[in-house]
Amino acid sequence: MNLSLSNPPQSLNATLQPLQQSVTVQFNYAVHFTSGLFRLQNPLLADVLQGQKSDHPAAAIVMIDSGLLPSDPYLLEQIVAYTDRYPDQICLKAKPLVVVGGEAAKNDPEFVEQIQQLISEVGLCRHSYVVAIGGGAVLDLVGYAAATAHRGVRLVRVPTTVLAQDDSGVGVKNSVNAFGKKNFLGTFTPPYAVINDSDFLMALSQRDWIAGIVEAVKVALIRDAHFFRFIEVNARALVNRDLSVMQQVIYRSCQHHLQHIGGYGDPFEMGSSRPLDFGHWAAHRLEYLTHYRLRHGEAVAIGIALDSTYAHFAGLLPTTDWTRILNTLLSLGFDLYVPELGAFSDEPEHSQSIFRGLTEFREHLGGELTLMLLTNIGFGVEVHQVEVSVYQQAIAYLKALSEKPVSQ
Amino acid sequence: MNLSLSNPPQSLNATLQPLQQSVTVQFNYAVHFTSGLFRLQNPLLADVLQGQKSDHPAAAIVMIDSGLLPSDPYLLEQIVAYTDRYPDQICLKAKPLVVVGGEAAKNDPEFVEQIQQLISEVGLCRHSYVVAIGGGAVLDLVGYAAATAHRGVRLVRVPTTVLAQDDSGVGVKNSVNAFGKKNFLGTFTPPYAVINDSDFLMALSQRDWIAGIVEAVKVALIRDAHFFRFIEVNARALVNRDLSVMQQVIYRSCQHHLQHIGGYGDPFEMGSSRPLDFGHWAAHRLEYLTHYRLRHGEAVAIGIALDSTYAHFAGLLPTTDWTRILNTLLSLGFDLYVPELGAFSDEPEHSQSIFRGLTEFREHLGGELTLMLLTNIGFGVEVHQVEVSVYQQAIAYLKALSEKPVSQ
Repeated sequence: MNLSLSNPPQSLNATLQPLQQSVTVQFNYAVHFTSGLFRLQNPLLADVLQGQKSDHPAAAIVMIDSGLLPSDPYLLEQIVAYTDRYPDQICLKAKPLVVVGGEAAKNDPEFVEQIQQLISEVGLCRHSYVVAIGGGAVLDLVGYAAATAHRGVRLVRVPTTVLAQDDSGVGVKNSVNAFGKKNFLGTFTPPYAVINDSDFLMALSQRDWIAGIVEAVKVALIRDAHFFRFIEVNARALVNRDLSVMQQVIYRSCQHHLQHIGGYGDPFEMGSSRPLDFGHWAAHRLEYLTHYRLRHGEAVAIGIALDSTYAHFAGLLPTTDWTRILNTLLSLGFDLYVPELGAFSDEPEHSQSIFRGLTEFREHLGGELTLMLLTNIGFGVEVHQVEVSVYQQAIAYLKALSEKPVSQ
Repeated sequence: MNLSLSNPPQSLNATLQPLQQSVTVQFNYAVHFTSGLFRLQNPLLADVLQGQKSDHPAAAIVMIDSGLLPSDPYLLEQIVAYTDRYPDQICLKAKPLVVVGGEAAKNDPEFVEQIQQLISEVGLCRHSYVVAIGGGAVLDLVGYAAATAHRGVRLVRVPTTVLAQDDSGVGVKNSVNAFGKKNFLGTFTPPYAVINDSDFLMALSQRDWIAGIVEAVKVALIRDAHFFRFIEVNARALVNRDLSVMQQVIYRSCQHHLQHIGGYGDPFEMGSSRPLDFGHWAAHRLEYLTHYRLRHGEAVAIGIALDSTYAHFAGLLPTTDWTRILNTLLSLGFDLYVPELGAFSDEPEHSQSIFRGLTEFREHLGGELTLMLLTNIGFGVEVHQVEVSVYQQAIAYLKALSEKPVSQ
């Protein structure tokens, strides 16, 4: 309070110094691990929603990924029965709403509006809950709607895929696609809570089961050589659907993702550094170029193979580490090449070239291009310039490799 | 990192303890005061956009409130000339875009999409700038679009009304209306910077000049008796458009609003306490009931008169303080009653009753009803219950007062 009210200054513009504002916001949330979330005797969800207040039940609505219903046709009834069992803790304000699953749903603004409208109609407030059950796309979509209604209704995420449980579901982002750009619209909004239920994993197709592992591989590669070793030696067990191994992989991956987001000083990504996006510039582009024929995890596997091969060819990553990375991805069953990676790679400016992904990546992150590249398994370095010609060699190598798998 | 990777636990569900995440985010921004923002020799905007980086000019687009053009028909050309003058600091990526001003613009989702699309088309990144010049509605609308594109492009607010300069423009919110509810969609997103240019104030209609003062009155009433006294004794000077007095009022109001948002521990309004919304439950409702015939400030003046009269009748606020409040509002030229306040006030559940505003207010804020009421000028107390019958008496009093003004 510098301005004297009793003595108005003579020259106001000279004396009206800029006011400096500093706003600090803290968000706390827990990631829970359970099984049988909607079994009547499992109190976890009721306890989470109950939260701090005990005088009246929590108002909530539930959104369910349509992809869950074929293997779990009674899920809606189960959820209603569950909430009926805990009337003092949960007040379900509407029948659970089924949301179309998969990336395509993020292209349709109508879905966002539909969820926002439901939040309005049933009278949720900022202390009410939206429970989103599904894969990453549904969590992104519902999360965006919940984050913008009333400037943010509490979101409880129940990720049901490996990918969502070990990565996106525990983070602070949401998004939908717009103007032909993946994740163009969204906010940084931490969830109120996350609940990882291992039962959902058992229902996954083999393809989805495997695809999600790659985000654990990614975080191991940039942070934790010991963890990478664990995945490497357990690759066969993972392929054979060993749930106990998978749960350890998810748990450790969650720890790393949470630690990175909470511990590295830039949870809302105001700077240009984005180590958790290792391998992602090409991955995002490949998802688009393949019209989402590739799963996100499958695209990231190729992106990791590409950036690791580039790092090796550029003299950053030793041969042993590079070989272990490619072999582990191959052991997990990933393809490390698709035709869209090679097509037009000799014409970086072509509208269908992989290299347009570098521009989009820089644009989405903001500021200068910042890519994480590996120097060893478990260690990365950030670079701000890359050689397209070396990337072209890396692409040629992966193409050749795909035609003649390496011996293991 | 509690999980041993070498010794897989026997029973995973028993050992997978919840992971606790804590995310802290800090936002810093300055509120600048100037005049002649787009005079070629005024370096402020160029300096603000230049920010930390000096190697290449800041990419920016500019949005202008259509309401500014009648009194300032060369504003667009001036802005273009200004940015041409500072090519090392600003790169204007598109011609300034005129945005329809006034609350009505917040009802049309097309406007939000139009701005988001422009951000996409010109390739802005998260480190680029959207400069929004206008009244509170345009700042809200553009702010929402900018906050959601790329999960947040930097927003520089140039508020042009008293209301936006002394209150909403310096805060951390944005919004549009949806599903018939004011501000139903929005985010909490601090601006990158705020620039208050006093020249814009001179062009305001008398009605807008006066209406914005009420947010300063509001913050004085709940926080600063000395400041209220300053407004009280300077009411005539304010009515007579004394710019020097107005600037002091705006500056002090900004200080209080910034201090509240930054200093009271809940900038993103996760709790139910909302002292800065003193007088606003009825105000929001009256804006709706009058189909926005009332300006926001005019509605808040009635809301303050209503809640002060209620506080007096309820035995909280002494007669002298109450009288000073009503007289100051009257001296500033505010009406303290409109027919929509009284209509259906005897039927609290009626769809057109003022009292539906209490429910909406609670719902928007979340949790239990929390209203700030005055105990003295400069001091408030929060209450969680109110007596409708006492409010009905207060409404009757204001109606009678409007028919026969008090002597001063």
